[in-house]
Amino acid sequence: MNNSNSSLAEGNSETTCDTAQLISNDEASTSNYGQLNNHENYQDTEENDLHGSHGVRRRQPIQKIEPGSMNILSAKYESLDYDTCENHLLLDEERKRGYPFIVWKDMARWFIIMLIGMVTALIAFIIDICIEQFSDIKYMELKKFVDKYVLMDKLYIPYLLWVLSNVCIVFIGSVLVAYVEPVAAGSGIPQVKCYLNGVKVPRVVRIKTLLVKTVGVITAVVGGLAGGKEGPMIHSGAVVAAGISQGKSTTLNRDFKIFQYFREDHEKRDFVSAGAAAGVSAAFGAPIGGVLFSLEEGTSFWNQALTWRTFFGTVVSTFTLNVALSAYHGHPGELSYPGLLNLGKMEPFPFQFYELPVFILFGGIGGFLGALWNYINYKLAVFRIRYITAPYLRVIEACLVAAASATCGFLMMFLLNDCRPLGEDPTKVPLQLFCADGEYNAMAAIWFQTPEASVRSFLHDPIGSYQPGSMLAFVACYFLLSTWTFGLAVSSGLFIPNLLTGAAWGRLLAIAMQAMLPSYTINPAKYALIGAAAQLGGVVRMTISLTVIIIETTGQISNALPIIITLVVAKWTGDFFNEGIYDIHIQLAAVPLLPWEPPPLTHNIYASEVMSHPVFTLRTVENVGHIVELLKVVTYNGFPVVDPPLADDAEVTTYKRLRGLILRSQLIVLLQNKLYNENANTTWSNFNVKMNMFRREYPRYTSIDKLEISDWEKTCTIDLRPYMNPSPYTLPHRASLPRLFRLFRALGLRHLPIVNDVNEVVGMVTRKDIARYRVWRHRGHMGMEELLLSSEI
Amino acid sequence: MNNSNSSLAEGNSETTCDTAQLISNDEASTSNYGQLNNHENYQDTEENDLHGSHGVRRRQPIQKIEPGSMNILSAKYESLDYDTCENHLLLDEERKRGYPFIVWKDMARWFIIMLIGMVTALIAFIIDICIEQFSDIKYMELKKFVDKYVLMDKLYIPYLLWVLSNVCIVFIGSVLVAYVEPVAAGSGIPQVKCYLNGVKVPRVVRIKTLLVKTVGVITAVVGGLAGGKEGPMIHSGAVVAAGISQGKSTTLNRDFKIFQYFREDHEKRDFVSAGAAAGVSAAFGAPIGGVLFSLEEGTSFWNQALTWRTFFGTVVSTFTLNVALSAYHGHPGELSYPGLLNLGKMEPFPFQFYELPVFILFGGIGGFLGALWNYINYKLAVFRIRYITAPYLRVIEACLVAAASATCGFLMMFLLNDCRPLGEDPTKVPLQLFCADGEYNAMAAIWFQTPEASVRSFLHDPIGSYQPGSMLAFVACYFLLSTWTFGLAVSSGLFIPNLLTGAAWGRLLAIAMQAMLPSYTINPAKYALIGAAAQLGGVVRMTISLTVIIIETTGQISNALPIIITLVVAKWTGDFFNEGIYDIHIQLAAVPLLPWEPPPLTHNIYASEVMSHPVFTLRTVENVGHIVELLKVVTYNGFPVVDPPLADDAEVTTYKRLRGLILRSQLIVLLQNKLYNENANTTWSNFNVKMNMFRREYPRYTSIDKLEISDWEKTCTIDLRPYMNPSPYTLPHRASLPRLFRLFRALGLRHLPIVNDVNEVVGMVTRKDIARYRVWRHRGHMGMEELLLSSEI
Repeated sequence: MNNSNSSLAEGNSETTCDTAQLISNDEASTSNYGQLNNHENYQDTEENDLHGSHGVRRRQPIQKIEPGSMNILSAKYESLDYDTCENHLLLDEERKRGYPFIVWKDMARWFIIMLIGMVTALIAFIIDICIEQFSDIKYMELKKFVDKYVLMDKLYIPYLLWVLSNVCIVFIGSVLVAYVEPVAAGSGIPQVKCYLNGVKVPRVVRIKTLLVKTVGVITAVVGGLAGGKEGPMIHSGAVVAAGISQGKSTTLNRDFKIFQYFREDHEKRDFVSAGAAAGVSAAFGAPIGGVLFSLEEGTSFWNQALTWRTFFGTVVSTFTLNVALSAYHGHPGELSYPGLLNLGKMEPFPFQFYELPVFILFGGIGGFLGALWNYINYKLAVFRIRYITAPYLRVIEACLVAAASATCGFLMMFLLNDCRPLGEDPTKVPLQLFCADGEYNAMAAIWFQTPEASVRSFLHDPIGSYQPGSMLAFVACYFLLSTWTFGLAVSSGLFIPNLLTGAAWGRLLAIAMQAMLPSYTINPAKYALIGAAAQLGGVVRMTISLTVIIIETTGQISNALPIIITLVVAKWTGDFFNEGIYDIHIQLAAVPLLPWEPPPLTHNIYASEVMSHPVFTLRTVENVGHIVELLKVVTYNGFPVVDPPLADDAEVTTYKRLRGLILRSQLIVLLQNKLYNENANTTWSNFNVKMNMFRREYPRYTSIDKLEISDWEKTCTIDLRPYMNPSPYTLPHRASLPRLFRLFRALGLRHLPIVNDVNEVVGMVTRKDIARYRVWRHRGHMGMEELLLSSEI
Repeated sequence: MNNSNSSLAEGNSETTCDTAQLISNDEASTSNYGQLNNHENYQDTEENDLHGSHGVRRRQPIQKIEPGSMNILSAKYESLDYDTCENHLLLDEERKRGYPFIVWKDMARWFIIMLIGMVTALIAFIIDICIEQFSDIKYMELKKFVDKYVLMDKLYIPYLLWVLSNVCIVFIGSVLVAYVEPVAAGSGIPQVKCYLNGVKVPRVVRIKTLLVKTVGVITAVVGGLAGGKEGPMIHSGAVVAAGISQGKSTTLNRDFKIFQYFREDHEKRDFVSAGAAAGVSAAFGAPIGGVLFSLEEGTSFWNQALTWRTFFGTVVSTFTLNVALSAYHGHPGELSYPGLLNLGKMEPFPFQFYELPVFILFGGIGGFLGALWNYINYKLAVFRIRYITAPYLRVIEACLVAAASATCGFLMMFLLNDCRPLGEDPTKVPLQLFCADGEYNAMAAIWFQTPEASVRSFLHDPIGSYQPGSMLAFVACYFLLSTWTFGLAVSSGLFIPNLLTGAAWGRLLAIAMQAMLPSYTINPAKYALIGAAAQLGGVVRMTISLTVIIIETTGQISNALPIIITLVVAKWTGDFFNEGIYDIHIQLAAVPLLPWEPPPLTHNIYASEVMSHPVFTLRTVENVGHIVELLKVVTYNGFPVVDPPLADDAEVTTYKRLRGLILRSQLIVLLQNKLYNENANTTWSNFNVKMNMFRREYPRYTSIDKLEISDWEKTCTIDLRPYMNPSPYTLPHRASLPRLFRLFRALGLRHLPIVNDVNEVVGMVTRKDIARYRVWRHRGHMGMEELLLSSEI
């Protein structure tokens, strides 16, 4: 910085002028900002005529925003920017480094993906082993107490011990989640989905989140909750990817100074997408399913090269996990060992043409039960948002559910005397309870193991292993427990509990069919699998990725066709009632997620109605004081850079010709590094500005309030041209909403300046402006609704 | 039309004026059109300085365009337009029909997809059965002759009969392809890939093509060529989709007046993508592989809803095919019958950690052999393009290959006395030849069946079924035959021949390994499968979709990990040498295919260099005579609509402010329906113009030369505003090539007007302008090259 006090005088006069200008802008802005929040208010009268006939459900303006409403978008989420800022610095770097750098970057990407796959698999391995070991210890100890006290008729003692152990274990995880990192709650899939869609959910890919998630999921499953480890593993993969690819960690406060070239939203998002896929791959041993999950649930951008790299990552992940697990299971290196499959190797089952109605029926039941599960969970979630807000309340609720789970299990073991002879089925902890010698309690065997092991039992146990009465009780109990569990302040997913519920009712229906058709031999394993798929499909509404995951995790493709048919019907049925559980939770969090397609029949909504205006612009060569004041006054993250109005042109006062777009983060870095000059004519080349200056700060930039800018500095100017994006995508004000939407969605934009006929900025469109137009479909009807924007939630 | 002769006088004067204006435009245009073709000429001097340092391989302008060069783009291909034209007619229709129409359209889409799946499956079934039946007859008859003449030592008689039958059968298919529909040659996958990328390859989705393809593929396989039926089945699926979804056929000259709302490039392309997926699904019994194929190889647009519909289509297709085939095989309705799998049900094979190097080695060999196969085929293709151009020559070549195939087979049977005891392996037509009684000739068994059956033999026959010497001869022979066959004037694919070659060398290597490691039992089936995957992967360079297809068609997922590892290595190895075979053929056809990403380091190439200029514009209210002359003079398909220059504004003469974009096809329909008015002020609402007027003509519009426009009509005017696209996407002239590319690619555009700072059109960018910047990668090096544009090829 070549500051010099001699220029103070002229500088000052300029500042005064600019501050005055700013204040006038500012007044306009405050009113506008209010207007943005109540955007629907000022359009109400004008638009009713336009849209009235199309059945737009126009919400009445709500005075008090009700938390837990489904028709609110929060203004607090920021967007990721998939668009590259092609400023002079980037061009300069490219010119200097040339093609070898491109080749190097490409190789680095492959290397990072390999690391992501390996680390994700190792984390999954640790979670796996911890859950298995701790669960074994817990249930073996409890069994000793049961065996001891059942003879003394004092079963309440092992019951209380069970409750106590559950509550204590869950307490640890719940405290971590509620107090240390609330974003680690649940499965993490909705958050990852938002991130991949382009919404920056705060703290979702931090290492702290990963640590809490890992400990949390172990405690949740070991604590006997009706939750699974798969969702958290997927989230873990995403965090690992974000961490490794950026070469720095905010939590650890370390910058390893590697992979700096990947410090931009575009690259980071690609890696996170691959990481989530690696997570699925590690969770289910499903490399292909992982890629498909990432595509179906998340990635907004389809790209052959990215898909291929992702595939490589999932293969590395599965391979690493299988090598580790095969060693753990005592078959080192034997990668085809069937014990590596989460749900156990299914046998192929024959099926006939005339079974089609049965599969459709199962799909229908799964879709209906899934929709019901979602509905109950939604109501519970709203209740939680409204009333269980304090962390201590959330911890208490989690402990309550842990106690309830143990109580359910105990009551079933105690009341349903479902005895089976020992030795027929593989069960680790056979409890005799009230059964005769040489027999064990079938329900106790189900409850005294992890939910994943219970799914295996239902899928593989022979005919007649369970009584219909106990199955019915189990279905009802587990259905309610699992829907109560999802959304608690613990880290746990919903895949396994729903597979378990589905497998149970599938088996129950198989028993019923067997009773109705005694002349046939009905294979309960087959219908348990179909039921499991149907229930899970009805809840999450995934199709192709879920099919592949189930096929890969049961190691049997011969059953693909029935599973697919069931899943398609389950999705259709479920979609008739409500949305998938992840979408419900995303809406509850008021996240401005962009759907795949623009809402239909909105060609008559124009950019001029969608955009926020007037906009705050910066001039190509701008005064530092003005920039600082602007950044302090408004919360916007992108500012159009415009030509200064011509002095003699009286008309051009409000709108100015667009020259580029600059981000708040860029301005912050410029101010932080004092890249301004007292002399407006000095060009940027005087400073040794590097892309790395911006990369060092990515992704968390200092707040403007923390920068100390002296009065003298405020008189300097910055030439924004070398830093701004010189040719941002724009649209004319007469462009329609679908056109706006497609451009925004297809290119992953964050800001879209709207221009008039002579290329002057008249407004700005961000994700929230578009996301508030949403289509609703319900029981065959559809329409368009406008969501409220709120900065309170 | 309310014509009236009274206004003739004023009209005429206007015409004169306009024609004069047109002629002056015209002169400018002709020179510009020449400039477009030699675009690289006028940039040569100017750009060398800019790009020189980046290693741009700038081709020297070639005086005579050499057919078969890889650095030419043909100007004759038109593009599809994925962007919706949001004109008043569309808005009007939307407003009138409302949401129920959206719901109806959605249901119609599902119904159409179901039909596509079923029809595609039935066509695949017919091809399957015909090939099997005819082949059986052919080989049974030949066997009788062999058995008869081998005793008389006159084996030349069955040999000549074999040659004759091959040549005759192939002659039929070849004549059809060469004379009736040349686009039906080959597998059709490159053409479908181009179509999905957005290039309108002429006649590729016509019913005539489907008929020729169906007959062609039956004759090719029955005629004993080293070709497969899978590629043509995929192409068939695409044609079926295009036909059904449009509800009309040009070949049959019938318009069924159904599904008219889907008569636009956007919808049609989505259906074709689903149809191709259904084709894969029917060809391999691979519903998931079908969806992935469509995504990996073709679809440019990832959309969850579309993917789900596609998935439904592939499931319907597999289901229908399996129902039909199970009935044919005598197991009606038994959908889990293993005989339904193309390559037979594989047994799971155990594999160990330390086998990883073996899989990598196989992948490497496959990649190398695949690259070699591609190289030989490329050289042959160039030879064909240059010298075998006349249809009769192409027929002769096909017959020659048919004779050569029979000769190869005969020589192998005759010279390699590889005898096996009868009864151990399943073989339909066992030939004794010179073997002892109770034995049969193993090579004869391989040659006297379809290639698909031979793949099954190699994958499933027990250890020691074949001698290493005969395997080696077979690999060499079939490798060369298959690469010679692909590209002939017959309809046949390359999947099965490459699988067969790969299975053969895989088995050969297994025999070699067994000899080296006599203490281990090496399963030849395992390595045959890995070899087959490696060889095919090395040729086509698909990864995830090929993995899934192989898994689905062998009905065994336990082998997924080795297959995946092999395929990844095969692709890496192959990509080191050259491109995938489909891409090679697409480049040979000079198709302007857009890759997934813009070429790197092109941020310093600006829209102003890429665009063609000056542009031909139309005024918002334009004179009919001017439109007619313009359409006759230039070949462009899109014209910017601009404000007329203000009379008193002397500066604005060349550039005009952009108002919209209108297509040649729209202008033709307007002229055809005489939608013009003598009075410039009459608005469009006077006419009863409907979207259906445009849909009726889609996709083949009359040529301008066939329209009869009287002199009087030429004096009328058209108000283009209700028909044009009022807010096309535009970019400023200073936008970089990557920015241009991303917009164009992500939104599937056809025309992109380039504007200056005040929104006046200064140029136009089409697919060819962008596609000519291509990145080359070769043996670890990379760079950018500029292709030639040619209207000759």
